[in-house]
This record gives sequence, structure tokens and C-alpha cells, in this order.
Amino acid sequence: MPLPSLHPVGASFPRANGAQLAAGSAAYVDDLRPAGLLFGAVLRAGRPHARILRIDTRRAERLKGVACVLTGHDIPVNAYGPLLQDQPVLCTDKVRYEGDPVVALCAESWAAAAEAARLVRVEYEDLPVVSDPEEAIRPGSPLLHEAHPTGNLVLEWKIRRGNLDAGFAEADLIVEERYQSRTQEHASIETHICMAEVDANGRLAVHVSSQTPYQIRFNVSRVLKLPIARVRVLSASAGGGFGGKHEPMLEPLAALCALKTGRPVKFRMTREEEFTASTIRHSLAMDYKTGVTRDGRITARRLRLLLDGGAYCSYGETTASKAALMGAGPYRVPNLHVDSLLTYTNNGIAGAVRGFGVTQTTYACECHMDTIARRLEMDPLDFRRRNAMQAGDAAHSGDVIRSCGFAEALDAATREVNWGAIGGGRTSPCGRKRRGRGLAAMIYPVGFTAAANPSGAFARVNEDATLTIYTGCADVGQGAHVILRQIAAEELGVDLESVHIVTGDTDLAPLDLGSVASRVTHIGGNAVRRAVAKAKGFLLRKAAQMIEAAEEDLEIADGKIAVKGAPDRCRTLPEVALKCHRDGEIPIAEGAYNPPGLHLDKTTGQGKPYDCYVFAAHAAEVEVDMDTGECRVLQLAAAHDVGRAVNPMNVEGQIEGGSLQGYGFGMLERIRYKGGIAQNPNLHDYLIPTALDGPARMKPIIVETEEPTGPFGAKGVAEPALNPTTPAILNAIYDAVGARITDLPATPEAVLRAMGMINGRH
Amino acid sequence: MPLPSLHPVGASFPRANGAQLAAGSAAYVDDLRPAGLLFGAVLRAGRPHARILRIDTRRAERLKGVACVLTGHDIPVNAYGPLLQDQPVLCTDKVRYEGDPVVALCAESWAAAAEAARLVRVEYEDLPVVSDPEEAIRPGSPLLHEAHPTGNLVLEWKIRRGNLDAGFAEADLIVEERYQSRTQEHASIETHICMAEVDANGRLAVHVSSQTPYQIRFNVSRVLKLPIARVRVLSASAGGGFGGKHEPMLEPLAALCALKTGRPVKFRMTREEEFTASTIRHSLAMDYKTGVTRDGRITARRLRLLLDGGAYCSYGETTASKAALMGAGPYRVPNLHVDSLLTYTNNGIAGAVRGFGVTQTTYACECHMDTIARRLEMDPLDFRRRNAMQAGDAAHSGDVIRSCGFAEALDAATREVNWGAIGGGRTSPCGRKRRGRGLAAMIYPVGFTAAANPSGAFARVNEDATLTIYTGCADVGQGAHVILRQIAAEELGVDLESVHIVTGDTDLAPLDLGSVASRVTHIGGNAVRRAVAKAKGFLLRKAAQMIEAAEEDLEIADGKIAVKGAPDRCRTLPEVALKCHRDGEIPIAEGAYNPPGLHLDKTTGQGKPYDCYVFAAHAAEVEVDMDTGECRVLQLAAAHDVGRAVNPMNVEGQIEGGSLQGYGFGMLERIRYKGGIAQNPNLHDYLIPTALDGPARMKPIIVETEEPTGPFGAKGVAEPALNPTTPAILNAIYDAVGARITDLPATPEAVLRAMGMINGRH
Repeated sequence: MPLPSLHPVGASFPRANGAQLAAGSAAYVDDLRPAGLLFGAVLRAGRPHARILRIDTRRAERLKGVACVLTGHDIPVNAYGPLLQDQPVLCTDKVRYEGDPVVALCAESWAAAAEAARLVRVEYEDLPVVSDPEEAIRPGSPLLHEAHPTGNLVLEWKIRRGNLDAGFAEADLIVEERYQSRTQEHASIETHICMAEVDANGRLAVHVSSQTPYQIRFNVSRVLKLPIARVRVLSASAGGGFGGKHEPMLEPLAALCALKTGRPVKFRMTREEEFTASTIRHSLAMDYKTGVTRDGRITARRLRLLLDGGAYCSYGETTASKAALMGAGPYRVPNLHVDSLLTYTNNGIAGAVRGFGVTQTTYACECHMDTIARRLEMDPLDFRRRNAMQAGDAAHSGDVIRSCGFAEALDAATREVNWGAIGGGRTSPCGRKRRGRGLAAMIYPVGFTAAANPSGAFARVNEDATLTIYTGCADVGQGAHVILRQIAAEELGVDLESVHIVTGDTDLAPLDLGSVASRVTHIGGNAVRRAVAKAKGFLLRKAAQMIEAAEEDLEIADGKIAVKGAPDRCRTLPEVALKCHRDGEIPIAEGAYNPPGLHLDKTTGQGKPYDCYVFAAHAAEVEVDMDTGECRVLQLAAAHDVGRAVNPMNVEGQIEGGSLQGYGFGMLERIRYKGGIAQNPNLHDYLIPTALDGPARMKPIIVETEEPTGPFGAKGVAEPALNPTTPAILNAIYDAVGARITDLPATPEAVLRAMGMINGRH
Repeated sequence: MPLPSLHPVGASFPRANGAQLAAGSAAYVDDLRPAGLLFGAVLRAGRPHARILRIDTRRAERLKGVACVLTGHDIPVNAYGPLLQDQPVLCTDKVRYEGDPVVALCAESWAAAAEAARLVRVEYEDLPVVSDPEEAIRPGSPLLHEAHPTGNLVLEWKIRRGNLDAGFAEADLIVEERYQSRTQEHASIETHICMAEVDANGRLAVHVSSQTPYQIRFNVSRVLKLPIARVRVLSASAGGGFGGKHEPMLEPLAALCALKTGRPVKFRMTREEEFTASTIRHSLAMDYKTGVTRDGRITARRLRLLLDGGAYCSYGETTASKAALMGAGPYRVPNLHVDSLLTYTNNGIAGAVRGFGVTQTTYACECHMDTIARRLEMDPLDFRRRNAMQAGDAAHSGDVIRSCGFAEALDAATREVNWGAIGGGRTSPCGRKRRGRGLAAMIYPVGFTAAANPSGAFARVNEDATLTIYTGCADVGQGAHVILRQIAAEELGVDLESVHIVTGDTDLAPLDLGSVASRVTHIGGNAVRRAVAKAKGFLLRKAAQMIEAAEEDLEIADGKIAVKGAPDRCRTLPEVALKCHRDGEIPIAEGAYNPPGLHLDKTTGQGKPYDCYVFAAHAAEVEVDMDTGECRVLQLAAAHDVGRAVNPMNVEGQIEGGSLQGYGFGMLERIRYKGGIAQNPNLHDYLIPTALDGPARMKPIIVETEEPTGPFGAKGVAEPALNPTTPAILNAIYDAVGARITDLPATPEAVLRAMGMINGRH
């Protein structure tokens, strides 16, 4: 569908702080070093499950240079969590995983703080450890949260759609498989960090590296029992987020230390704490059962998803529900049952991670689709086309999909890798290497409505008709701000250079939920666009007075407001803006967007949980070394329906970065636990992909659609970029060597094992 | 008139930063010392009038440590000024007073910058000097601005009201006098200072100590030809303003140096520069002629005011017009002619100073009123009462006065000093000292409308129903921010602690014209109140939904929104606020106020130039030493009609500070020029009053009226506090010893001379 040409929406612009980021001159929280700074440390449990008998901080308090020592009894409201407030800021009665914080303190140096933490004595009574989710929900399993009404089963999500039995009865072929995904650490290069300081009026300023400054503000104010207006959160540059910089782990500690000492206090996590004491990706056990007709029509599907939530709920509900709602893939499934179960275990806390459950189900669903296609002796591309969702179809929640570029994405990705005959690898030129091609697809939701999802913005037209936008949307490296500037410029009818963003300070901009859930372009963009539209109204009203014309007859073009069809009857935008200011009719306005939704029916999972949906298809070509199991991705074509691409360069960058992270999820990454203790909490034993590890050739492909709910038709990209990568590669491996990888990651050993070349579990 | 009790408007609260200011811990611009800071210096003319033949900066540029040297040719738009753009940022062709800047530079230290300035060579051709305003406007006088169409006469202001000849014909007595006022330096304890820096995107941040950050932003952007959105002005604490921190004298220089060097650059004035190169108060020659009937009714008045504007126009127009419009005092004058003439001379630039021309005319008018009363053998209090303006009367511009507490102020001030029989001093207990009492009154305008006078504000209700106000109103020590918080709290119905102010950064808050012209409480307060009222609308709409009631049936009280008459049908404000945020109906709103006006008719001075008027009466008791001429003010009662007093403690503080400044104007201060060169440019030879110099007893008295245009009826105080002090004291001196002081200041020598004890001019 050809889209009308607009400017600057649709053009590629570099981000304003790009030069600083590239040059390393951007200021991060660790660069803030005010006079009198104190340095924090957190003493953590170091054991997976135990009752706390006694905490003795006296030796630490007496150490020279120690300014303040906190236990859970110092925290006014010692519980937090986005759904269940099941997580203590500092533990007082028991610890539930190795990273649980018990004592926080600050001192004159990092070394003094670490030494003081070593001097704290905590007596524990160890408790039985639960580390397997299936075991966790069996009756009689040791409980993590004794008061939780459903024991170690945190919660359960259901979809009930159509008649499952009738659907399976109609099928010519029923395929059942189990897939297991594993943990993934966000591995942001900047670890968690914050600095808090108190001004002369007792007002807190908390400098954060966070995706969600307003949630930090809310949580700090809540757990410290302070009015929100007494907490200001300032966002410095962020060295990565990916869902991990989301929860108030260090900020309340730094804030309370600052309040108690009157001095600035910094806390930061070590790399080991990143692995053992910050959130990680949920591992999922995924049972897929699908019925199809001989000609490839899906008649029924049943999913059971079991999520290892770790010690606390965190964003487990969001993950369980997204996995349930998206788990059946971008396909028409008339009869669908999903049960998505979230458990407590004594493993690391699983929380928000880019992809939010859908990375895992996309892996399972798309490998499962590949298996079915092969059992049907059908081209996996044709099989997907046969069942592909289209605009006007219902998503699995019954919600109508208003824009859908799925068919175009399938075509574009496969065309790019010269998709042809499937079935058996081909020997590559140099001996025992085989090549294969794989395909995977995805549906992902944008703009959740189950919880409030507001974004607010202010727009101010300055005296010279430049535009200042106040937004709370955090740019954690994804380029959000240039996108919002483009939307603002487009709405007012000025060029990008005329738009300036004010952000990074909760005092400045209205509430925004955060850079989470792929929502910024869509939700934040709508808020900005609405604010600018209202501010523009001032200019049009003033221009109508000045020109003596009716407001509805005016248009903005070429820096002027003119009567449509009479371009000489005009005033320049700066003339009008200055006149507005001089007349005290200041062209400032607020805009807000919170996507409308219908809460899901708890028994059926039906309703309207999202504002819109994006689709994608990745096609991979791999070369597998038959002797070593090593897989090289020769090429990856990643086609994404993003609605309108506000900034194509930025979209491509997101697709490239996401695909590399997807490669890591599928091929390299897993935190290995032994009795709840992480065995590889460092970037030596836990590998993340570098530029050399990823696909030798990567081709991001933008599929544009026009989403009616989005700003200028935009939906977004963000998280989805990583979801189809793993199954596309794994399906290519299967194509090459016939090995089906049902547990992650697909290390060389796992590939050899799947080929039957070696035995045993990894 | 009893006013309805409101809370917190009407209660005394300390300002939020009071503790910091008192403890000296507030941060001023000079406390900002970023890495890489450069230090500026300005080479000034040092001569009153000369043509520039050559500027040689080569030796300065070669000095080690010099980073950047600027001449006027480096300034993109080398002219500024609020009315006439007659003032160069750096002079290129000629200099017109001793402080005229010629070269600006910056270097690695203050010392290096000063040394570099000394190395600059400028060749001049001296021109004839004009230092007397009467001479300046005589034909043939040497011209300062050759292109100015009316020569050294900058402009002329007129009032023509009634029939002057008929009025004088009706009079039984006609009194003519001439009064001369002299210059006054603002003498802020913090001298002019600013620091500019450039971020990685080429955006300027200018840290200022200014009453008018938005005018600094506008001027820096204009003279440097930058879009307004590329200039951010940040206000640190200000150590005094009084009208002097108003114009862009150093900021464009610091900004251009920062742009050229890429480093932060600070400029600050020495105390000597404060006297010789920043603005000062206009000296006025004032001819008063008044006709009265035998029973004390004024029938006609004629004023000729001649203002010494110095080398550039600056705020001379505002001063000339305010002096004209207020010069006939708070009295009914049916037949009035005023001619107010502003001249160029080679003296220091006269500009905005607290009182803005009315300080000078109040001195003249009120001494003149005293003379007339004595000639009529009438009590000066009765004479004033006889002619006093009342609500409903017209001001001298024909504009209707809607609130007027003048009669109450006269009563309150005189009652306080036990006003009794007048006529002749009484010998005090210890020998040759005589005591007397004097009275003076004043009218002053609030909310000018001749130029645009906008203030904007944003109000945001946070999730916990605390309120954040964004205002551009600068608090330069007068306590503006606590006033605005009180107005905001009152409007929403919350307590003061729930309101937080965001300010001091042009990126944060919408345009405000500045802390000038006694406008902040009235204009800024109206803007804040309007913004809060709009934001409150979100809460009322949401509460109406939640309670299922009609919005118009709701009221806010005790932290709740309830149905009127059914207080149990309610929600707490935090419940409603949180729901608004969650629903994406963010309670943020803008408010703006620009007082409506009618431009004055140039030939008659009639129209509506102000939004409202305040009135005051000061009564003084003095003791004069007959041998030395020393005058001690035993008591001063200062009664001010301020509309509603939003914060009585703050109003009293303003009255006390203003009265002391008025004491200085009348008794101590004058910059003495010799051929255009200031002879006493330091705080040793130019004395400002200390706490021990002022009235031994000072009694501020608040007279409340309800002004319909003001926020909760407020008008303001600010400037007016100083205006009646001088004539009250001088009339008391006359009462004590029969000496009429017609030239300022009333030094002991001047008093002795007026008593006939010594001869000659001072």
C-alpha cells in the first residue's frame, strides 16, 4: 500500500545525542561525583532459601568511614512489586534467593562500603530449596511465600476460544511437542546504578539509569512514605535497559541513605549482582499440541506454558499473559486453549525482559510450525501463508486486528534469502558442512491496556515558532527522542531542527509509564502529537484573527499559516507565535494518551488487551559443521511490520540490535543454576554475542502499514526485533542437518546431541 | 471591609529557600565552577563621549591563557534595547558614556582576563560632552545618537486632561515649585554575573542572576541570531535586583565566548562597573504648579518632568510614562497637563529602578502638597483627604480605579505616629534638637498594558494530589515563590506543603515577562491560579464519574471532593488524582494572564495603561540636630493598600526593605558626575543605608482591599514600598525646622543649607 509522503515523519535522522554516545562523552550516573559523595553496598543472602535469625550490624557501624547502615526495619513500607507487593526492599524474616538484599550501607569509599558489608553478621536457618517449577507447584512442596493463597503457583492465565475437542476431531494430523526455553540476562553494559541527594528543603533528587523514571519516583515515594512532589527523578544517559532497568532495587536504598546522612549517596551493582540480584528472563516449559487438516489448515491448538518466576512475582503476570495471548502465533486458530502458569522457585527473579514471554513462545510455536509443515510435507512458507492472520481477523483475545503486514513480511523475508525448495541440507563447498534455510514469524502486541498505560506530554511553541516538547519518555539508547521530535515537527508543520526535547527530569515532563512494552513510539508519540495539535490550535486561532479569516480555512505550509487556496493571505509562523506570546495567549498545551481497552475475561482470556499488533518474519540461512556442531548464520532477513516507519534508519538499527540479542537467546545464553545458585554469573562464563558472532549478513526489511490508532500510522518495533530470530535459525539448522533443538541454547554440543552424534543431557 | 477568611491565602508562611538564604548556603552563579571554566573581562570606554578610530586586540590575543577576544564586529546583531535598539553590545563607531563596552574577552583566570584587557589598544577622538539634560535638548547641543530623529530628546510623554486655564482661573491659590531628584544605584550586593556553556548539540545554557530570564533568552537569541529553542536560561539564586538585573549586558558576551571556545565562560562586573556600566535611576527635574481653592480643593495642576536618560534609552520610556501618569499623585485633579521629557546625555545609562520614575515624582508631589497645605494653613492630612482618590474615580489616564484603600492608609499611618497639631517643631529633651512629623502618599500602577505583559504557568496534579507549578516568575529575593504556592494551594484546596514550584529554567516553565513592575503577585498569580483551576477541572470531571454525580454539585474541602450537602458521597483527592493518571487523563494544564488594556492616546495620555492601582501613606517622625543638620528618623509608619495580602509577613518584609531603600534615596544616595565621569563609584563614597541608619522604629501596616482583577483580590506591594518614604521624612524635617529640601539627598549639609545655616550649592 503506497503511503502519502510526509516530512519529517518517514525520513531518517540521526538522534540528537548520537555524537555524544558515539564519542563516549555522554554523561552517565557514574559520571556524577558531587562533593561529599558516599558509596553504597548491599549485603545479599548468598543462599537460596533461609530464615533470618539475627542481623548484627554493630561491627559495620563502628568501621571508620561508614555513614549509615540500613536494615529492613528502617524502610517505612518494606514491600514492593508491580502486581503483588511480595518483594522486600531489605529482607527481615527470610531470604528467598541468593540475591535477596539484607543490609544496605554507605561509606566514604566503595572499598570501605564493601569492607563494612563483610563485617555484618547474619544468622540464618536454611530452608529446603525449590528450583524446578514443576516440583514447585506439586502439593507439599516447600513454600516461598507462606501467605500466598495458591502456594508456589503465583497465578494462572487462561485462553478458552472455540471448541477444542471439536477442533482436534476435525484434524487429519495432530502434532504434540515440548519445548524448553532458558534464562537470559539483560547484560546491559552499564550495570544498575543510582545516586540520590537531598536539597536544603529535604527534597530528594534521584539520578537514575532507568527505563521508567516515573515508576521509580512512585516507588521511592511509596516505600519511603514521602509525597510524590518531594521526589524528583533525573535520568542520565542509560547504557542499556532491555527490561532490566525497570524496578526500584537500589533507588530506595540510596534515597534513604541520603535522607539519613544529608549527603549524596551512590549505589551500583557489580556484574555478578547483575546476574544474581537483578531480574532475568523467565524460563518456560512449553507444551504445544496442534491439529491440522491434510491441506494445512489449523483446526485446534492447545498450549500449556509453565513459567519459572523465581523468588518474587515481579512482571511475571505480564509475561505469563503475553505468552498466553501471543503463544499461538500469528495464525488463525479457531479452537484454542492456553494455560499459562507462573511459579515461585528459589531461582533468580524472572522479570521484564525484551520480548516478555513472547520470545520464548515464538521459539516454541515457530519450531512447532516447522515440524507440522514437514509432517504435512508442505513448504513451511506455504503452511504459514495458509493460516496467516490478516487485517480484520481477531487476535487470540478476540480483539480485532486493524493493520497487518504479515503476508508482506513473509514474502519479503523469504524473497531476501532466495527461499526455494526445502527438505534436507546441502553440502557446502568445503566438506562436512551443511547449509539450510529456516523461517519463523511473530505477532506482538503494542499498547497494553490491562494496566493503565498513560503518557503525557506538553508542547510549547516558542516566540520564534520553534517547538519545545516536554516528555517523560526515557531514551535508553533506542532513539525514542528523535522519533518524538519527528512526530512533533510533522504535526506542527516545521522542520526537525525546530523541535527541542525537554526530558530526563520528572519535574519537567508529565507522567509517562516508561520505555517498556514497545510502547514509546505509539503511546508517547500519540501524547506528543495531541499536545502539539492543541498548541497549534493557539496559532491557528491567532492567525485567523490576524488574517481575518475563518480558522477552518487556514493551513500550515512552508513555515506560514495561509488561507487555503490564497497563499498570499498569510502570516509566518514566527509572526503568529510572537503575537500569541505578546497577547498572553501562550501556545502551550498538554496531550495525553492511554489506549482504550477491555479487561480480559479471566475465564476465557477474551477482551481487548492491546491497542494494536505488529507482525514479523525472519528467514535465516545457516551452515552447520557436522563434526563440531558449530552453526554459522550466513544470512538473516528480518522483515517487520512496524506500521509507518517514523525513522527508517532507527527502525533498521532496532531490528539489527534485536536480531543479535535473539541470536544470543537461541545460540549462547543461559544462566545455569545448581540448587538455586547461579554457576556462571559473569561475562566470561555467560557469553553474549559480539558483532562477529551474529549473522554474517543481516538484512532488516521494513514493511509499512497504516495503523489507525498510531501517530501518523506508526506502531513501533523495539522488542519484536528479537523474537523470530531464534526459531528461524533453529529451523534452518533442522533444514540443514535434521536436528530439532527443543532446549536452549543451541550450543554446538546441543546440536550434535540433537543430531544423535552425542548422548546425554546438557 | 472584612474579607472572607481563606486559607492558605492570607496566612504568613516563610519562603521555601529561606533557610538556605539565611545560612548562606544558597547557590549563586559565582558558585558554579565547572571544569574548563574561562573568565571574562570587558574593556570599557573610560571616557564619556568619543569616536573610536581603531581597536587593536593583537597583543591581548597573544597573551598566554587568552581564549577568545571579541569586538562589536563579532556580534551578529550588535544592537539591543527594550524600546529603541540604540545600544551596542560592543561599541564599534563611538562610545557615549564611560561604561560603554568596547572589547570583551575571556581567559584562564580573572587575572589573565584583566591583564589582556589592559593590553587592548583603542584609539579615540574625544567628542564634546553633554551632561546637563536641559542643555542636552537645546538646539545645537552635541548629539549622542546622530540618527535619532529628535536629537537628544529621546521622547516626550503628555497628559492632557480637562481645561488647564479654566482650572487655574478657578483657583484661590497657585503654588509653583521645582524639585530635583538625583541618581540612585541599585547596589545589589551580588554584582552582575552570568555563566554560559554549550552542550554537545551546540545548545547554549546561560546561568544568570536576573529578574527577567525570558528577556535574557530573547535577547541572547536575537543578538546572536540563534533560534530561541537553542538558548536555555537558568536562574540561580539572585543577590538583589531592584530593576538592575534586567538587561542583557554580559550574557551575550559570555554566550558568544562559550560558542566560540566550546568551554564554559563566566563574566561578572566589579563594584565599580556596577556604578559606571550598569543602569542607574533617572534623575528628574520636576516643575510642579498647582491651583487650589481656599477650602483645599485642587482645581488644576501642571507638571514638567525632565528625565536624564544617560547614554541610551533603556527603560526610559517606561520611566517617563509612569512618572507622567502617576506624577500628579493619588488626588482628584480635574484639569491636568503633564509633559515628561526624556533626554540623552553622556552620563550613566538610566534604566529600570524600583519605583520607575514614581519614586521621584512622589518626592516632588508630596513635598509640593505639604507646601500647599501650609500655605492654606490646613492640616496636610486633611488637605490630602479632601482630594483623595476613591474607588470608582478615574486615574490620571482616565482609567477607572476599581479598588482603593487610600483613605484607610492615610488614617492608619497617621494614627500610628499619633498625628496631631502641625506647624513648627518642638524642642526635644536634650537641647538643640527639634522634632517634627510628616506625611506623604502615593499611587502606583500594577500590571502595565502598554507593552505585552504575559505570564504563563503550568499546573500539574501529581498522582498523590500534590501539585507541581511551573512558573517563569523569578524570585530575586522578594519571596515570589511562596506567594505563588499559596495562590495555587488555595485554588486547588490543598495545604501549602502540597505545592511544589518548578522554576529557574526557561526550558521548564512558560514565558513570564519577569520580576519587574511589581507584577508578579498580580500577573504571575493570575496565571498560576488559572492553570490550577484548569487542572482542577480534570479532578472534578473524574470525581463526578467516580461518585456518579454532576460536576457542578461537587466541592473540594478537607482533602476530598464531595457532593455539596452530602459529604459522605466523596473521594479523596489522591484517589481521584491517581485515577486520572491511570486513565490517561493527566491533570495538567496551562494558564496565562496578560492584562487587558487600551493603548494610550499619544496626544492626551488617556486610555487604560494598567490593570489596577495600589495606594500608600507613610508618616514619619524625625529629630533634627539644629547644629549639625543630622536627621534621625524616630519612627516611620508605612501603610500600604496591597489588595489582599497573600502573605502578610512577606508584605511586611517588602515594606520594611522598601522603606529603607526609600530612606537611602532621600537621605544618602547620589552618584556624583563630573563631565560624565562618576566620582564616587564605590560603597565607601556612595553610602547605602544599613539597618542602623534607617528609622529607629518602623511599622509596616497592611491595608487590605479586594481588587477584582487580582488573584483572590491581590494587587501587590514590591516597588511602591519605597516611594512615599522620602517625602514623609522631608515633610517631617520641614515640620521640625522649616527647611524645605528641593534637591536630593537630604544630607546634613543640605538640611543646614535649607535652614539658612550655610550657603552655597552642594
